[in-house]
Amino acid sequence: MITWKNLDTVDAYQELAKVEPVNLKEVMSGENGAERVKKYSVPMAEGLAYNFAAKQVDDKVLAALSKLAEETQLTEKFEELYNGEVINTGEKRMVLHHMTRGQLGAPVEADGVDKRAFYVEQQDRIADFADKVHSGAIANEAGEKFTTVVQIGIGGSDLGPRAMYLALENWAKVNDTFKMEAKFISNVDPDDASAVLNTIDVAHSLFILVSKSGTTLETLTNESFVKDALKNAGLDPAKHMIAVTSETSPLAKSDDYLAAFFMDDYIGGRYSSTSAVGGAVLSLAFGSDVFAKFLEGAAAEDALSKNKNLMENPAMLDALIGVYERNVLGYGTTAVLPYSQALNRFPAHLQQLDMESNGKSVNRFGEPVDYVTGPVIFGEPGTNGQHSFYQLLHQGTDIIPLQFVGFKNNQMGRDVVIQDSTSQQKLCANVAAQIVAFACGKADEDRNKNFEGGRPSSIIVGDQLTPQTLGALLAHFENKVMFQGFVWNVNSFDQEGVQLGKVLAKRVLAHETDGALKVYSDLLNI
Amino acid sequence: MITWKNLDTVDAYQELAKVEPVNLKEVMSGENGAERVKKYSVPMAEGLAYNFAAKQVDDKVLAALSKLAEETQLTEKFEELYNGEVINTGEKRMVLHHMTRGQLGAPVEADGVDKRAFYVEQQDRIADFADKVHSGAIANEAGEKFTTVVQIGIGGSDLGPRAMYLALENWAKVNDTFKMEAKFISNVDPDDASAVLNTIDVAHSLFILVSKSGTTLETLTNESFVKDALKNAGLDPAKHMIAVTSETSPLAKSDDYLAAFFMDDYIGGRYSSTSAVGGAVLSLAFGSDVFAKFLEGAAAEDALSKNKNLMENPAMLDALIGVYERNVLGYGTTAVLPYSQALNRFPAHLQQLDMESNGKSVNRFGEPVDYVTGPVIFGEPGTNGQHSFYQLLHQGTDIIPLQFVGFKNNQMGRDVVIQDSTSQQKLCANVAAQIVAFACGKADEDRNKNFEGGRPSSIIVGDQLTPQTLGALLAHFENKVMFQGFVWNVNSFDQEGVQLGKVLAKRVLAHETDGALKVYSDLLNI
Repeated sequence: MITWKNLDTVDAYQELAKVEPVNLKEVMSGENGAERVKKYSVPMAEGLAYNFAAKQVDDKVLAALSKLAEETQLTEKFEELYNGEVINTGEKRMVLHHMTRGQLGAPVEADGVDKRAFYVEQQDRIADFADKVHSGAIANEAGEKFTTVVQIGIGGSDLGPRAMYLALENWAKVNDTFKMEAKFISNVDPDDASAVLNTIDVAHSLFILVSKSGTTLETLTNESFVKDALKNAGLDPAKHMIAVTSETSPLAKSDDYLAAFFMDDYIGGRYSSTSAVGGAVLSLAFGSDVFAKFLEGAAAEDALSKNKNLMENPAMLDALIGVYERNVLGYGTTAVLPYSQALNRFPAHLQQLDMESNGKSVNRFGEPVDYVTGPVIFGEPGTNGQHSFYQLLHQGTDIIPLQFVGFKNNQMGRDVVIQDSTSQQKLCANVAAQIVAFACGKADEDRNKNFEGGRPSSIIVGDQLTPQTLGALLAHFENKVMFQGFVWNVNSFDQEGVQLGKVLAKRVLAHETDGALKVYSDLLNI
Repeated sequence: MITWKNLDTVDAYQELAKVEPVNLKEVMSGENGAERVKKYSVPMAEGLAYNFAAKQVDDKVLAALSKLAEETQLTEKFEELYNGEVINTGEKRMVLHHMTRGQLGAPVEADGVDKRAFYVEQQDRIADFADKVHSGAIANEAGEKFTTVVQIGIGGSDLGPRAMYLALENWAKVNDTFKMEAKFISNVDPDDASAVLNTIDVAHSLFILVSKSGTTLETLTNESFVKDALKNAGLDPAKHMIAVTSETSPLAKSDDYLAAFFMDDYIGGRYSSTSAVGGAVLSLAFGSDVFAKFLEGAAAEDALSKNKNLMENPAMLDALIGVYERNVLGYGTTAVLPYSQALNRFPAHLQQLDMESNGKSVNRFGEPVDYVTGPVIFGEPGTNGQHSFYQLLHQGTDIIPLQFVGFKNNQMGRDVVIQDSTSQQKLCANVAAQIVAFACGKADEDRNKNFEGGRPSSIIVGDQLTPQTLGALLAHFENKVMFQGFVWNVNSFDQEGVQLGKVLAKRVLAHETDGALKVYSDLLNI
């Protein structure tokens, strides 16, 4: 029997707050520190590991977190979710993004079909379409192959797929699976579409219009932009466009598109990278085999999230440590710091995933909660960030928990030895050094050069960023955010907070404004 | 007589904390709200305006902030700075980046030369060099024109120049001043350099090595990478590279470079966009006239920062409102949200500028402070962010102050009408709507759809993003950060917090580790 309780009514949470906090500097120093790094590591899928030695936890805190996991029934709630309960209470919908990459529980039927079969069918249709594009069986009006794919979408239809594309672009190039260059148009700022259109050859470009509802203003506007460009080039837009949408949207059965691939209401935008939203662009760019491997990695990580044992469930552990930091230790922001240039937009995706899911002030029943929920998420790749905002992370007045990601090997295999080490070694040496510098600090008589330490971090380590490890990494964070939503008792799958702005913007465009809104509209010359 | 005092010893600060807080929802509603938007606006340079109507201030708070500005002697401290006092106490250096764009006070001599003359000389040398590259007088070994310029640098040698390049790239294309495409290599991750090298034609590329000291590990490593690529293509690296460095660095008089342009120790990396660090790449990309206009805009904004009257000094006003939000209202994070795709990396630059400058726990004399200093800065362009993290901004449990930027016109002049409005109108309508939505909220019986409001923002509005307005925008934020540093009594111009990580990374590479650091090194296979 599942009970949904506010965090502040959970006994284990009260107990957790009473556990003596860990002195990170102390526990991470000397040989105890070395033992700790070996011990506080949990295997993830695809050879990844979640190492949390530099977090402010010890066996007592972990025991309390384990109790919290039990009392808040985290794995049971996950089970409800993947078995098709209506977990998205706000919109009264099931939450099925896990099913795009596997069947974790019972078959789920909706809209008259088995949902797993539905998602697989879309993948197969996309694979078939992508194969034909790559072979030239589907080509432009002159019978020439398409060379570029352009995704038109915003939010979850942009950030996730774009981050995944960038993460695998160079991997695909060196592994000979690179098929088409991908570009992305998202912003309603007309300069976004203009700039992209200026860099491509529209005659050899295939555009993917991505909008679940088929009514997203930015996306429809940018579609028009693109259609104008195609017409101006003497081309038929219907021969250059496909749609990714829901079966009930106006785009689903329109002659304006070469083909339409489907997602549904059970996949939130920010959880849609493994659905047709990511599937179409990634399969076209890298081939459907690469996309399938990406799904494999995500599925393998999902399976771990079923484990009841906290030490065998890295996403749940990561989630609970995050709750401890947010609600007990009082840290308001988390930085995501991948030591991999290919992950340069991964933090932007996690920013949406996390902040849009858990940036809520009411619980899943619409009642205000009396505790803080989702933190602010930000980040840039290392070592770049070291030369930018790390100053504040090391010596600022607030403590910011850090999530590092690092890989033993780079993707492209090209390197150079300077001062007796490769660039890859320097990259890895830097992330290792940062973890210890943040945790242990270093005393200096010159207070300006003094490092207090005690700044917590964890690291996800892997051999290489590949389609599989990327899938596992993505699923880890999706599931972490889901578990945190369960702990906070919020609905992580709606986003009512984006509505008011849309309503007011429409009013401005209709010139139905008064008061401050009217003056701002005048200021901006609307 | 200048006195440097900790904020908590300043009388005006104690008074400020006692002023009754403003109910933003109330003051922004109805016709009073309209009056407020008209009234609470301060002109910036180049036709920009800083509108702070949606901040939690009223005439009483502003009077208290004005007293705070006086008692902390903000304009007097700025005067000391531009007259060449040693404001960077940690490194015992003057702070002269304003002098790259004008002479605000007395002549300053250092290293045996007038510094203004020195910076102008470098600009002239760069202009001359850029002209010759554009005309083909300086060409590759085959006598062909260079078409691409690649900046190799990290931190301030990357983020600022890259953000400025992206901000003006499309403007330059439509205004026929676009000369060369620019690329950037920054990360020590070898995949960064490999990826850039794969997209360019090295035979027609000119590389700029940017490192003040000439010893930055990432930059030297990437230089080797590039030299290898040039040699592999049968080219002489010395014919394809220039350096931007200090006159005392090993790069300054080396035969390895076609030319060297100079900055000095009085320009911090994060303040170097208007020095040769930004000057070389921007002059090569867009022509030296465009760079000169950018400097003009910055100089015009600098002049405003001299004003003692708070209502005529937008950077000082912005700074003090930020301090009020951080220290009195207790907000820990600020989001920067430009409604302009061209400013898509501007928030990343501000993140370094702000967090590296004021993320400090000791005052300028090296004594710990008992109050919070620099906030976390993050941001993405609108409307993209609306479909991502705005959920948390609207309905999350923390209040995040917002800094909007908007322009009446786009840069490229191409647009499309959908549902009776242009994309540009939609973009502007959205930012206007967001300000009011955040400030006023909207009550709803369904608490999940309820918007509390009371979330503060300001907006900088301009006609168009041009070299001049970009310069003004940059200088505004540089000066804001400087004024905040003065109020917090910290040294905004050093960055000792980045040192420990470097030291430990070297130890890892030398295999001189023990304890936790050794185990992390093993984990990462170093």
